[in-house]
Amino acid sequence: MLGQMMDDPLTITSIMEFADRVFRDTEIVSVTADNPRHRYTFGAAFARARRLANVLDGLGLARGDRIATLAWNDYRHFELYYGISGAGYVCHTINPRLFPEQIAYIANHAEDQWIFTDVAFVPLLEKLQDALKTVKGIVVLTSQATMPATTLKNVHCYEALIADQPDRYDWPLLNENSACSLCYTSGTTGHPKGVLYSHRSTVLHCLATSMRDVIGLAAGDTVMPVVPMFHVNAWGVVYSAAAAGARLVFPGPKMGDGETLARLINEEAVDLALGVPTVWLALVNHLRASGGAVPSLKRVVIGGAACPEALLRGLDQFGVYAHIGWGMTEMSPLGTLNTLMPWMEELPDAEKTAYRLKAGRLIYGVQMRIVDASGAELPWDGKHSGQLQVRGPWICKSYYRLDNSDAHLPDGWFDTGDVAAIDPHGYMQITDRTKDVIKSGGEWISSIEVENAAMGHPDVLEAAVIGVPHPKWTERPLLVVVKRPGTEPTKEAILAFLKGKIATWWIPEDCVFVEFIPHTATGKVSKKDLRDQFRDYSYG
Amino acid sequence: MLGQMMDDPLTITSIMEFADRVFRDTEIVSVTADNPRHRYTFGAAFARARRLANVLDGLGLARGDRIATLAWNDYRHFELYYGISGAGYVCHTINPRLFPEQIAYIANHAEDQWIFTDVAFVPLLEKLQDALKTVKGIVVLTSQATMPATTLKNVHCYEALIADQPDRYDWPLLNENSACSLCYTSGTTGHPKGVLYSHRSTVLHCLATSMRDVIGLAAGDTVMPVVPMFHVNAWGVVYSAAAAGARLVFPGPKMGDGETLARLINEEAVDLALGVPTVWLALVNHLRASGGAVPSLKRVVIGGAACPEALLRGLDQFGVYAHIGWGMTEMSPLGTLNTLMPWMEELPDAEKTAYRLKAGRLIYGVQMRIVDASGAELPWDGKHSGQLQVRGPWICKSYYRLDNSDAHLPDGWFDTGDVAAIDPHGYMQITDRTKDVIKSGGEWISSIEVENAAMGHPDVLEAAVIGVPHPKWTERPLLVVVKRPGTEPTKEAILAFLKGKIATWWIPEDCVFVEFIPHTATGKVSKKDLRDQFRDYSYG
Repeated sequence: MLGQMMDDPLTITSIMEFADRVFRDTEIVSVTADNPRHRYTFGAAFARARRLANVLDGLGLARGDRIATLAWNDYRHFELYYGISGAGYVCHTINPRLFPEQIAYIANHAEDQWIFTDVAFVPLLEKLQDALKTVKGIVVLTSQATMPATTLKNVHCYEALIADQPDRYDWPLLNENSACSLCYTSGTTGHPKGVLYSHRSTVLHCLATSMRDVIGLAAGDTVMPVVPMFHVNAWGVVYSAAAAGARLVFPGPKMGDGETLARLINEEAVDLALGVPTVWLALVNHLRASGGAVPSLKRVVIGGAACPEALLRGLDQFGVYAHIGWGMTEMSPLGTLNTLMPWMEELPDAEKTAYRLKAGRLIYGVQMRIVDASGAELPWDGKHSGQLQVRGPWICKSYYRLDNSDAHLPDGWFDTGDVAAIDPHGYMQITDRTKDVIKSGGEWISSIEVENAAMGHPDVLEAAVIGVPHPKWTERPLLVVVKRPGTEPTKEAILAFLKGKIATWWIPEDCVFVEFIPHTATGKVSKKDLRDQFRDYSYG
Repeated sequence: MLGQMMDDPLTITSIMEFADRVFRDTEIVSVTADNPRHRYTFGAAFARARRLANVLDGLGLARGDRIATLAWNDYRHFELYYGISGAGYVCHTINPRLFPEQIAYIANHAEDQWIFTDVAFVPLLEKLQDALKTVKGIVVLTSQATMPATTLKNVHCYEALIADQPDRYDWPLLNENSACSLCYTSGTTGHPKGVLYSHRSTVLHCLATSMRDVIGLAAGDTVMPVVPMFHVNAWGVVYSAAAAGARLVFPGPKMGDGETLARLINEEAVDLALGVPTVWLALVNHLRASGGAVPSLKRVVIGGAACPEALLRGLDQFGVYAHIGWGMTEMSPLGTLNTLMPWMEELPDAEKTAYRLKAGRLIYGVQMRIVDASGAELPWDGKHSGQLQVRGPWICKSYYRLDNSDAHLPDGWFDTGDVAAIDPHGYMQITDRTKDVIKSGGEWISSIEVENAAMGHPDVLEAAVIGVPHPKWTERPLLVVVKRPGTEPTKEAILAFLKGKIATWWIPEDCVFVEFIPHTATGKVSKKDLRDQFRDYSYG
């Protein structure tokens, strides 16, 4: 027997129309390339999104067509999110930091029809335009006065286009399962893979992450997504801020600079910000060097990479509570967020910090399991590590135009590629990537834990651990270190430093110093490149 | 084009399984008829819900069959909520305060197959059992030792039944649109009408009310639903507490007594409680009389009836912030909740209080509109009042086994029967019930506003206003007053008191004193009975 409740669809449009009525006067502040501080309201933003929808409807597109963005976090990108998805098209956010050939591959694979781009990426598109097979035109996100001279074909000015259109638009009533946005994840091997979000998955992710113990935005908050809008919809904040009526501050193109961030936080009284560890490291370093402070900033959400303990403690010193989170492009992205249970708050400092450094507590809506190599489920005892698998209504079922992937299991679960332990309270800790784990004598060594221990040495700027062939143990760990400038540690000193911090048999056989460690376009250590670099290294 | 996200259904089972993994050790405290303080955990509760599901599967029921409860707020009722809905049956919560003939009507209309009842309602069921046409048996929610002697046929003991079953049970994978629970709303005219909730509507209501500015439960909270579990699922807290991992305190049968509530709040360190104004009035009166305090209690959510300003201020004095909310059985129930915008917090006290006394801000997921008699939409200016209509995924589309209702409009909206004004920030204020509004000279007089003004007089214990026929103005208001014991106000003094508080032409022509004002089974003033009582009164 079915219930007798209304079947109103869960759509991004419903978030927009709600915020447009209830939070019309709430402010959106942006730094853009052409304006150091642009201010308007949700009401003005959605009026411009309606103008944009009229523009899109005039381009001869079919519903579901992909429209790409190459843009930093600002108000025009916000309008694209709502205007494109609301009008029934798919907003495809492209990471401009990818290699040009990857961008071309992605745009062609997605069959993007139009690209909306910041001025800064016009030179990139000029080089790429012959490789873009499906793109019919380019819209530059600026005003007529600041349109660049360009060799791009069929190029238009965003402000001129929308100025010509009425701000009335009847948003179509969409199927909640229809696609709203697309984001490619660039693995370390193979082509980038597309995750095609639905209106339903986006709304559900928005609601679940709005729970008080998760991101929990409210109308009294001023939130700054430093995580780029091309990284999984800025972790959903573009939607959850509108649903909650939180004031939004978009930092624009200069997001990695501590001084710029600190100034923006202080001038706009930001109280919650979200971003990768590197960003918060830059902020803490700047505050220390300058003697500055960020009194308004109460909380940051940290994700995208492991957060070192030193960063957590550094933020603590400035009165900023860091919540570590974990997710993936395939997960919309959030799966866990670190908020302590009341009894954990009472623990001695070291134990409490150990909890705070985990990837966080499972959030409602996501199911997790850890399995061993045979696929058997492992207990949530905080000790057993296994392959981390997930499922839920905001987790991708299959990649866009890719029929089979190793990650999608026959029983419908998704293999994250992470190795993790989960404790009895649902707190998860990533111990490695499945492909980076070091198999030594039939046991697993977590490369991440060895790296974290090595990073605790004062002379180590960055550390990475890979497995290299070993005649007796199959593999043994090799520690690769970038020295902190001005220091000259010995390999013996660093290896000795690890004693007592990790299991003795986890201590690497050797430590080598390098000038730099290779990173992926999204800022993570590229173990694949590192393994290539040390292909000839052997403990044989 | 459809998105490519997993299609995991939104079910109550998913809330249960999540809480069972992550919040297994979180406590549920209950007062019951047979135990002044029962304690166990979510883990133990769900293990017993699995035993219950095994019992239910043994009763020869079909999926979707209705199983009724007649019970106060305690842990066994909690187990019924999850066990019945999770196993694919429909949990039909019956209000034991209804007239016996209404209970029989409801049970027959719902075709309830079994009734699970508190010991206290066994005598009631004994009288009703011959009138119950579909009920196959009764389960008494107690242990073998406290089973009452009874003339009920096919009667069983809850604890004995579940003790015989294993605590393993594979919850079925349910369609999210399948029915999970049923609640009848007793209007003032006609038969009670059933609202048949779906798993989907219940989960979405849970998520939306879990947003920080709505009820916003968290794992650090201890929440006490004083609103009965037979009143729209205790406003959803039975689900949202599990999803958030909030510690639950169930007050059992003695919920309207200020002393009992204060003791329970203090002994269990309750920080959030939910209930109707009468309950909080009893609490404030007790605290004042006893010189007591409730230091742990930070917030209460007040709904179900209008909240007088004196109660808001009374709670303020004890450090308890009152959030007024509004909803209906047909709305799962929540539609608005009063949380102020940051700028409202800065207003002068009188203006701030005026905002706090509104029914609250629209919550995401619900759409509202106000219309005039012709159905034309009225502006959200805080001035225009009109018929309040709503829609959204947790609002009922039609009543159970009732094909047509006046409330369900041709365009799919639901008419609440309330008259309201909405301000530009989405804050709604009920000004009347459509059928109680007084039509005077072609204009509307809000009976509620006149009542609230009269209630401000120190000698008025309770006041109600109805329209009575008038030869010139069609209708004019009549004020009906119950005097505060020990006072002897004159009608002239009370009417004079209203001057300057409401529009002059809203001041009633007359005031009459009565011993008591009639109330409905849910505690609201019965204007219908009052109009019957004054049928012969006329201003002619």
